Amino acid sequence: MWEPILTLSEMPCTSEAHDHSRVFHGIPPPTFDLPLLDTPDIITANVQKLIEQTPNPRHSFIFKVLVMHLHQFVNETRLTTDELKATINFFTRTRQNSSQEISLLSSVLGVSALVAMLNNPVTGGATDHSPLGPFFKFAEDTADVDFGESIASEGKGDYMYVEGRILTTEGQPIPNAIIYTWETDANGFYDIEYADRSQIDCRGRLRSDDNGKFGYRAVVPAPYAIYGDGLVGELLRLLGRHNMRPSHIHMMSLKDIVDDEEARKRGFPRGGSFKLLQYDIVLLTEEQSAVMCARVEKERGIITGGGKY
Amino acid sequence: MWEPILTLSEMPCTSEAHDHSRVFHGIPPPTFDLPLLDTPDIITANVQKLIEQTPNPRHSFIFKVLVMHLHQFVNETRLTTDELKATINFFTRTRQNSSQEISLLSSVLGVSALVAMLNNPVTGGATDHSPLGPFFKFAEDTADVDFGESIASEGKGDYMYVEGRILTTEGQPIPNAIIYTWETDANGFYDIEYADRSQIDCRGRLRSDDNGKFGYRAVVPAPYAIYGDGLVGELLRLLGRHNMRPSHIHMMSLKDIVDDEEARKRGFPRGGSFKLLQYDIVLLTEEQSAVMCARVEKERGIITGGGKY
Repeated sequence: MWEPILTLSEMPCTSEAHDHSRVFHGIPPPTFDLPLLDTPDIITANVQKLIEQTPNPRHSFIFKVLVMHLHQFVNETRLTTDELKATINFFTRTRQNSSQEISLLSSVLGVSALVAMLNNPVTGGATDHSPLGPFFKFAEDTADVDFGESIASEGKGDYMYVEGRILTTEGQPIPNAIIYTWETDANGFYDIEYADRSQIDCRGRLRSDDNGKFGYRAVVPAPYAIYGDGLVGELLRLLGRHNMRPSHIHMMSLKDIVDDEEARKRGFPRGGSFKLLQYDIVLLTEEQSAVMCARVEKERGIITGGGKY
Repeated sequence: MWEPILTLSEMPCTSEAHDHSRVFHGIPPPTFDLPLLDTPDIITANVQKLIEQTPNPRHSFIFKVLVMHLHQFVNETRLTTDELKATINFFTRTRQNSSQEISLLSSVLGVSALVAMLNNPVTGGATDHSPLGPFFKFAEDTADVDFGESIASEGKGDYMYVEGRILTTEGQPIPNAIIYTWETDANGFYDIEYADRSQIDCRGRLRSDDNGKFGYRAVVPAPYAIYGDGLVGELLRLLGRHNMRPSHIHMMSLKDIVDDEEARKRGFPRGGSFKLLQYDIVLLTEEQSAVMCARVEKERGIITGGGKY
């Protein structure tokens, strides 16, 4: 059990001195011997065999599937040594970057969306989940906004009116539902991004009325960039992808209303024209949600072989 | 193009304020529309469609295969939101860890070994490559050791004699081959790990003689732990795996020689017994190596569709 006495090829490694201790952590080595690494398949099989020692069956299952796909990825791309070095360097360099880089990475590779969809199943035409993003700050930053009032102070952008209903899957209105809403101003910034902000702006907490309806004044938010100077920005440039937050379906229902009287009636001080955003939200009951989640849990149990986790 | 006005589920995100700028990096958005995310398959297809914009065909190919396997991994494990959070946290926490963590991660998951094997093809019974590891320091730390001399100072451990030949695949000796060798002492530490070291120890540079033979005195190295207090140490505990450097084939040829006269003849000052390590190394010629590498390159070209990269 030691280092190779003689090595014949160079592999990725850093020459940085370690600053923490090398201590045996107490788990004994496996009692079985692993075959020598004569072929790529044996490398994969050996790692899988080691993973069989994982105490928690769910962890064991996840890492088996992970290693299978990771090794298939290497095999199918015939990943070069330089490409592996670049990959290791990419993750190593996250140390110099924001803690949000890995979350952004998961986002731009579609992993977050996929996990969100798989874990938030809907039924009966209920409205889909949507990732929350890092700008939800209502725990420390709440403003109650009455029906028809504005979440944005005057001058923050072009007028927009948002209205809709909160419904059950049977089309029944849900009164008194709590709605959190937040948006950028016309410059593409959330209020919390302004170091000198003196008030809550472009965000609010509303409630649906007895008919399930909600409505509030806002401004047309602007498209904005995600951080372009970090690792994910680098990756997006490599992939030839823009670094703007993507369009959302909500935009589809944005209507131009050119009607001074209607604008004033809705409470826009300057009058003139405004955008109208109409959107109905269909919610699951707790029971419906529980049934759907139980279905996912059951499916997960079947897939993982039913091991407890 | 804006944030969702209303969000219905929580997704992994941190609340840390960003400390760098949000700047559009200049690559225009795609000219095509992406379908709405109604099913998991559409999420995967949309990401793949975006990857088609990657300017470099090799990068495009690598990320297509990566995203395919990453999404298959999520689908097949039905990864939970908490498990995705834990994964993101794992990589985010590498910021507080050694820069070697990601390299170690690649190593314990067998990825480094697989990449090394795929990229260093051998033929005709030539000796396999072996990862170099982080303790190769000969650029700044070289000691020439004559045939039969010791790389370890007296008292560093039990006596070991290492000998073998450097051969071609036809069995012809290769004279004057340069051999770098390094090992831990009996305590499991390399000399460079001692802050107070005053000399080069347990390492040396040798040359094969006219018959391709090499031989030197050393000490029996000790098994030793990789860093157990970092993220990879945490992962190994999760997987029920020990954190010791694995055994190597070289150990197989370790023989016990209990012969005082033989020990003294080999130059061990205390005489008595010693371990004998015999190992022949079969090297490829540059031409053989070039042929094998060209084969890998060709195969890679076929697999990736022959795109230039």
